Amino acid sequence: MTAFATAELINTGTELLFGSVINTHLAFLGQQLFSLGVRISRQTTVPDSHSIRDAILEAAGRCPLLLVTGGLGPTTDDVTREIVAELTGRRLEYHEEIFQRIKARFDRRGLQLTPPISRQAHVPEGCEVLPNDYGTAPGIYVPGTEALPHLILLPGPPRELRPMFDQYAVPIIRKLAGKNDLTAKVFRTVGLGESYIQEMVGADLAAIEGLELGYCARLGEVDVRLIGSGESVLRGTELMQSRLSHYIVSDEDRGLEEVVVKLLTKGQVTIATAESCTGGLLANRLTNVPGASAVFLEGNVTYSNAAKIRTLGVTADLLNTVGAVSKEVARAMAEGARDRAGANYALSTTGIAGPDGGTPQKPVGTVFVGLAASDTPTEVEQLLFPMDRLSFKQMVTQAALDLLRRRLLGI
Amino acid sequence: MTAFATAELINTGTELLFGSVINTHLAFLGQQLFSLGVRISRQTTVPDSHSIRDAILEAAGRCPLLLVTGGLGPTTDDVTREIVAELTGRRLEYHEEIFQRIKARFDRRGLQLTPPISRQAHVPEGCEVLPNDYGTAPGIYVPGTEALPHLILLPGPPRELRPMFDQYAVPIIRKLAGKNDLTAKVFRTVGLGESYIQEMVGADLAAIEGLELGYCARLGEVDVRLIGSGESVLRGTELMQSRLSHYIVSDEDRGLEEVVVKLLTKGQVTIATAESCTGGLLANRLTNVPGASAVFLEGNVTYSNAAKIRTLGVTADLLNTVGAVSKEVARAMAEGARDRAGANYALSTTGIAGPDGGTPQKPVGTVFVGLAASDTPTEVEQLLFPMDRLSFKQMVTQAALDLLRRRLLGI
Repeated sequence: MTAFATAELINTGTELLFGSVINTHLAFLGQQLFSLGVRISRQTTVPDSHSIRDAILEAAGRCPLLLVTGGLGPTTDDVTREIVAELTGRRLEYHEEIFQRIKARFDRRGLQLTPPISRQAHVPEGCEVLPNDYGTAPGIYVPGTEALPHLILLPGPPRELRPMFDQYAVPIIRKLAGKNDLTAKVFRTVGLGESYIQEMVGADLAAIEGLELGYCARLGEVDVRLIGSGESVLRGTELMQSRLSHYIVSDEDRGLEEVVVKLLTKGQVTIATAESCTGGLLANRLTNVPGASAVFLEGNVTYSNAAKIRTLGVTADLLNTVGAVSKEVARAMAEGARDRAGANYALSTTGIAGPDGGTPQKPVGTVFVGLAASDTPTEVEQLLFPMDRLSFKQMVTQAALDLLRRRLLGI
Repeated sequence: MTAFATAELINTGTELLFGSVINTHLAFLGQQLFSLGVRISRQTTVPDSHSIRDAILEAAGRCPLLLVTGGLGPTTDDVTREIVAELTGRRLEYHEEIFQRIKARFDRRGLQLTPPISRQAHVPEGCEVLPNDYGTAPGIYVPGTEALPHLILLPGPPRELRPMFDQYAVPIIRKLAGKNDLTAKVFRTVGLGESYIQEMVGADLAAIEGLELGYCARLGEVDVRLIGSGESVLRGTELMQSRLSHYIVSDEDRGLEEVVVKLLTKGQVTIATAESCTGGLLANRLTNVPGASAVFLEGNVTYSNAAKIRTLGVTADLLNTVGAVSKEVARAMAEGARDRAGANYALSTTGIAGPDGGTPQKPVGTVFVGLAASDTPTEVEQLLFPMDRLSFKQMVTQAALDLLRRRLLGI
């Protein structure tokens, strides 16, 4: 088997072309494949129809490995399985084992099995089944021939595709792709803009021989990606750490909430939250981390003034004089949440998410983020994120989590 | 000019194939084009290289309109302009007006104009310039010929592409596409599996002449999409409503949280939440809806038993005898939140999100969802969602929001 370095990706799904769903498969698979030394040279989206056949045949002449997502479900518009069987001249074979897995899944949830479901237990003969631990449709690996590339068929839902890819497709691709000495490191940074980061490290990183450099900006965070030989990535890493030190949240692709929960756990300290404008997102992000229950005591989503008074002990007098969106109320909220829960730390947010509610003095996007601790004075940051409601909430929670991260690290 | 109903989309950008950036162009353009009666029949992503030429030539034989994004910037890997000039046999012409626009933009930001920037002032002769009000690279419309489809070139950054598309590309496409009577309707359903829905309506919908049918399953919800003539969509709509009535959350592409906030607002009633296992996601989803502050009073994320006792009035005795994950505690939490906030309704969640904490009697995924109201007895549903932590949280909030939706509708 010869080693190869490129693959193509076909995403099937009328809903993708229609714009109902954003295609996140390319981003996920592009990153994962690269870490295996394989680059995606082309990606194509086609409807759930016979276009799938055309797209597979066109790609066949261009690449040694072809990944196809979607069209493996139980409904009549799921036709990938049949098309691949036809193209490869393989019969669809019933697999009792797959059927039993699907049945067990339905039984666990107390659901009735419908006849179309059993379509998913059919697989082109002589192919390898990739079990689906998070759904019903299994993936399929069809070994390549003279005429066709190696085919890996994966289900469409990302929460099924991703673990299946990691667990079952990666070993196959690793074997097919052979060895390569490329390594990659991703630094997650918080608190600096993309162009500012580029100015701080871009030219010097680009000067390291054999190092490929990439940036990826998301809401409130920027990833810096280094790819190259072990030696060049090591040099890049040293440069990143000396220049961006405190701004680097993780060099292991960990999210800010994960880093914060880990620091709290390590320090055996606890946290409570008092949220107004973020409406529960801060608590939600913290509790997304497995093991959060050891450090997260209580979250208060005090949206109304009455709730701020009743639950957090903010005084009506304070709310009347300075307003709910103020430094003083952010402080009182954080301290109230800390005292109420008996937590070591408490974070608070109060601001104007919009689209309504802004004033000339406090325009939409104005926010105060508070951090109370059991052993130091309360700190409040005033920030401005003039953007859509959901982006605003995300940015405010980034600021709050990073405030706590820096406190926990003493930086 | 003949009317047409399909287009293809080519996205250029090595960063897209590498997975650094999620491609949101297809979702945006797919929706916008559909509203003009044009469907995207295929989308392709290629690197910043000569592959752009191949992709344009391949698409040329298949579609009357081709949109190409990216590769119009100032750097050496931006080659779309040159490739299109070559393919169409047009010379690149310098446009003084474009140059002045770019210069003014730099002057406003106090930036120095660099020589490569002026590349962007070159446009294939005889083409229409689409001004860029949010960046430097203009878009370009190249009228179609016998050999090539109509070409619309747009810059890669979404914040430049989107307004440019709306303002300058839409009028061109509207003229080219002519009139057509295609309409679309998307039904969002909650509470039924994809295969079960197909069994209930699939065959009869498929039997309606001229109606195209599609399904899209997400966590805890399934969209059913009908596309066709006004008459066929109307018949499909009647069928959907008579068969799936209560399970249809929206036929206007609204999320469950949006529908619930709208119902609460319309009924002038209020809501509070008491969350354990969902950790704030329920409050977060409700407060993602603009205007939620009129109906959402307070959210309590009572992760610890101490918080359940202190904030919601759950008794230590109850927690000791039946455990935090129980019907009785779900009831006490909902009633405690309702009474505390003085709300008309309160939702509660208590369960085992995992990965740890399961027992043989209450395995990971077990959850109780409670609904207390000011005028009716409290209702508690026991459910089982044995899946990863984030999916579990999403499914539980779907169940909770749908419980309230059905109550508010009296169904």
